Amino acid sequence: MKSYIKSVVEINDSKKSRYFALIIQLLILLSIVTFSIETIPDLKPQTIAILGSIEIICVIVFTIEYLLRIYVSDKKLNFVFSFYGLIDLLAILPFYLSFGIDLRSLRALRFVRLFRLLKLARYNKAIRHFTKAISIAKEEILLFLFITLILIYLSAVGIYYFENEAQPEHFSSIFDSLWWAIITLTTVGYGDVYPITAGGRIFTFFILMIGLGIVAIPTGILSSALTRSIEKKEE
Amino acid sequence: MKSYIKSVVEINDSKKSRYFALIIQLLILLSIVTFSIETIPDLKPQTIAILGSIEIICVIVFTIEYLLRIYVSDKKLNFVFSFYGLIDLLAILPFYLSFGIDLRSLRALRFVRLFRLLKLARYNKAIRHFTKAISIAKEEILLFLFITLILIYLSAVGIYYFENEAQPEHFSSIFDSLWWAIITLTTVGYGDVYPITAGGRIFTFFILMIGLGIVAIPTGILSSALTRSIEKKEE
Amino acid sequence: MKSYIKSVVEINDSKKSRYFALIIQLLILLSIVTFSIETIPDLKPQTIAILGSIEIICVIVFTIEYLLRIYVSDKKLNFVFSFYGLIDLLAILPFYLSFGIDLRSLRALRFVRLFRLLKLARYNKAIRHFTKAISIAKEEILLFLFITLILIYLSAVGIYYFENEAQPEHFSSIFDSLWWAIITLTTVGYGDVYPITAGGRIFTFFILMIGLGIVAIPTGILSSALTRSIEKKEE
Amino acid sequence: MKSYIKSVVEINDSKKSRYFALIIQLLILLSIVTFSIETIPDLKPQTIAILGSIEIICVIVFTIEYLLRIYVSDKKLNFVFSFYGLIDLLAILPFYLSFGIDLRSLRALRFVRLFRLLKLARYNKAIRHFTKAISIAKEEILLFLFITLILIYLSAVGIYYFENEAQPEHFSSIFDSLWWAIITLTTVGYGDVYPITAGGRIFTFFILMIGLGIVAIPTGILSSALTRSIEKKEE
Repeated sequence: MKSYIKSVVEINDSKKSRYFALIIQLLILLSIVTFSIETIPDLKPQTIAILGSIEIICVIVFTIEYLLRIYVSDKKLNFVFSFYGLIDLLAILPFYLSFGIDLRSLRALRFVRLFRLLKLARYNKAIRHFTKAISIAKEEILLFLFITLILIYLSAVGIYYFENEAQPEHFSSIFDSLWWAIITLTTVGYGDVYPITAGGRIFTFFILMIGLGIVAIPTGILSSALTRSIEKKEE
Repeated sequence: MKSYIKSVVEINDSKKSRYFALIIQLLILLSIVTFSIETIPDLKPQTIAILGSIEIICVIVFTIEYLLRIYVSDKKLNFVFSFYGLIDLLAILPFYLSFGIDLRSLRALRFVRLFRLLKLARYNKAIRHFTKAISIAKEEILLFLFITLILIYLSAVGIYYFENEAQPEHFSSIFDSLWWAIITLTTVGYGDVYPITAGGRIFTFFILMIGLGIVAIPTGILSSALTRSIEKKEE
Repeated sequence: MKSYIKSVVEINDSKKSRYFALIIQLLILLSIVTFSIETIPDLKPQTIAILGSIEIICVIVFTIEYLLRIYVSDKKLNFVFSFYGLIDLLAILPFYLSFGIDLRSLRALRFVRLFRLLKLARYNKAIRHFTKAISIAKEEILLFLFITLILIYLSAVGIYYFENEAQPEHFSSIFDSLWWAIITLTTVGYGDVYPITAGGRIFTFFILMIGLGIVAIPTGILSSALTRSIEKKEE
Repeated sequence: MKSYIKSVVEINDSKKSRYFALIIQLLILLSIVTFSIETIPDLKPQTIAILGSIEIICVIVFTIEYLLRIYVSDKKLNFVFSFYGLIDLLAILPFYLSFGIDLRSLRALRFVRLFRLLKLARYNKAIRHFTKAISIAKEEILLFLFITLILIYLSAVGIYYFENEAQPEHFSSIFDSLWWAIITLTTVGYGDVYPITAGGRIFTFFILMIGLGIVAIPTGILSSALTRSIEKKEE
């Protein structure tokens, strides 16, 4: 019996295991969709009731899955405190905790339900590649993230110097200028703050010429680490 | 006779075949241009009449081309149900269907005429390379598209948490926040929605630092698959 | 005498030739700066007089340079009709033509003076590399520019379909929608036009996911062609 | 005694040297944070007093560090006029100068304190890699920066020609148009200025198609130089 359940619950190439994994993944997605719909303001009471029912079904299935995983694992404590074991617990805990505590705190608990998204990691190759790539390039990314931060800071100081007098409402302090620096150097450019003085515009030009290359570096390192990670697997 | 028509209609290096292909391509472009002009509001009746005439000429030529292709193909049914056969049919069908049905539905049918653009695929090397590149990198692109989707979703949840109270009209639900997440992580940054709270801005900073690298990955995979596809051809 | 002038006027490693080239380049830049200042509205009469004098000095030097180049070239007609010969002529011609014609047309002639910028090509390594890189990758760039154009067109048609009813003032025809498609797919995102319907936003999401990769391809091809062009030179 | 201080102050793998470096780095960051907070308008007098105290502590430690570095160096004058020696001096000089001069000029002096950020260069691997990468690719970057500048200038002239009449307040001269060209070609796109005429929009399309590839080149050269610089170190 135990070995049969194990063959279903654990990831392998058998048909039953695949169906089980697919059902769990679909339930995770369903759970995330209901979470998103709940945030829409002014929902009808019957919609809220339906969403509540779906939530209960999801939690019941995830609880059964969690208990089965404990049951089939040889070293039960090891599983409970493993990465996946903790995520499985975090995915159902908020629901059970919400019975014992005040309704006011429920709002924050709702967000904890997002840990269910991490449950997908167990089944997803891309996430495994991604985690590996980050661990490969960790040091390099940190190093150049540091240069990026210095550049963003210096840009903020510079634009504060040029624009503070002309636009005291937008560039009131270096912290406000940092927002401009981030949005400009990533080329997002919302248009909520932008320089209007000649000095500020010339400074923006130089910062962009230098900055685009620097901000792109951590991105480039991550991308190349990922490619290497995939190629290794293929070999 | 049949073999002569075949040598003209089918793609090969003969002069006649090239002229035939060029005429069809020019008619496709002409057909697309008239389609675009038709969308301009308040056209003069005589302009509409001229556009209608061009449309009729295009459809007649495409119909003759379609019939010739059926005529010269050895396995006629195979051609009719092939990719190019269906596109050739879709390019002329809306015109003939518009006689038999109510005028109200014409609007939607108009858009079906855009399938003519796909007729260009037969003649265009770039499109063939492109289709091949996608089939090479299909699995990888899907994997990282999935991570991109998770990142966009988590960004939307995060910004909803930070900005919902301050800007309930822009970040009213997670679905509204998703729009912000897409426009920000692709660095389009229209400026219709942007965070105004300190928490939301710091969150945006972290999301951009992490996100730009991730969103660039499917793009990078497609580009490198294309380069490989072109290099293979050259060998 | 002729061989001495030749050694000065033509590009080589001698000191005199370098100084001559430097003076011409500085005069080109000076000429461009005066051209830019002339566009500022409401200039003082004395500023206009100074700019006019600088312009006359530049033209005199460029005319002498042009005549010297004809004098030192062995096949004079070949030089006059060569790429650089024509540019040298175009750089001075507008000035002399402006005496014989009506003052109204002067405005358009002013822009012809920008050909002087092309004179820099003679002295600039980067421009030579750049021209070579384009000729290497010409075919590939054209092929993928074609796909980019199709994608931009299809995006415009799609957004027209979704947004035309909701925002008839911004998406009045496919030509207006094309502007949106260009600004969105290049991630410039001015924010003058953007979708507001749910359908239009979902469509934008898919177009961005597919489009960013495609629009980046011609860019990538040009960059890699340039790198190859530089590396070849180094060998 | 001197050799003991030397082993602490200079960068090496001993524990004491690491702690010393860490304390200095933390003080630099603290000094930068207080500098940023000082720019917030309408601070309470007690906050200003606390920031002033932190500033004094930082300067005292940096002064001691500077004197120790002079003491332990064998060729004292060489250190004083070395890159790091001058930075260490610049980091403390503004504080001491502010006693002797008028309070009005203090504002400009404040910014000189940012040189402290450069003190981090001594301890930071990424900055060393970065400086090296720039020196490797210096010539290439300059060459293509030049093409980028020409492209930005030509874009500005073109848009001035198309938009000046329609929007004289936004495109009043070529200098105003240059701002548009920079913000558009880097894809920042604030949305403060954008073309509204059909000609200007078509021109923008062509400029973007050509320009994105060109503006990306110096960025690409810097990135690849950095990768090479890191790989060399690893070997």
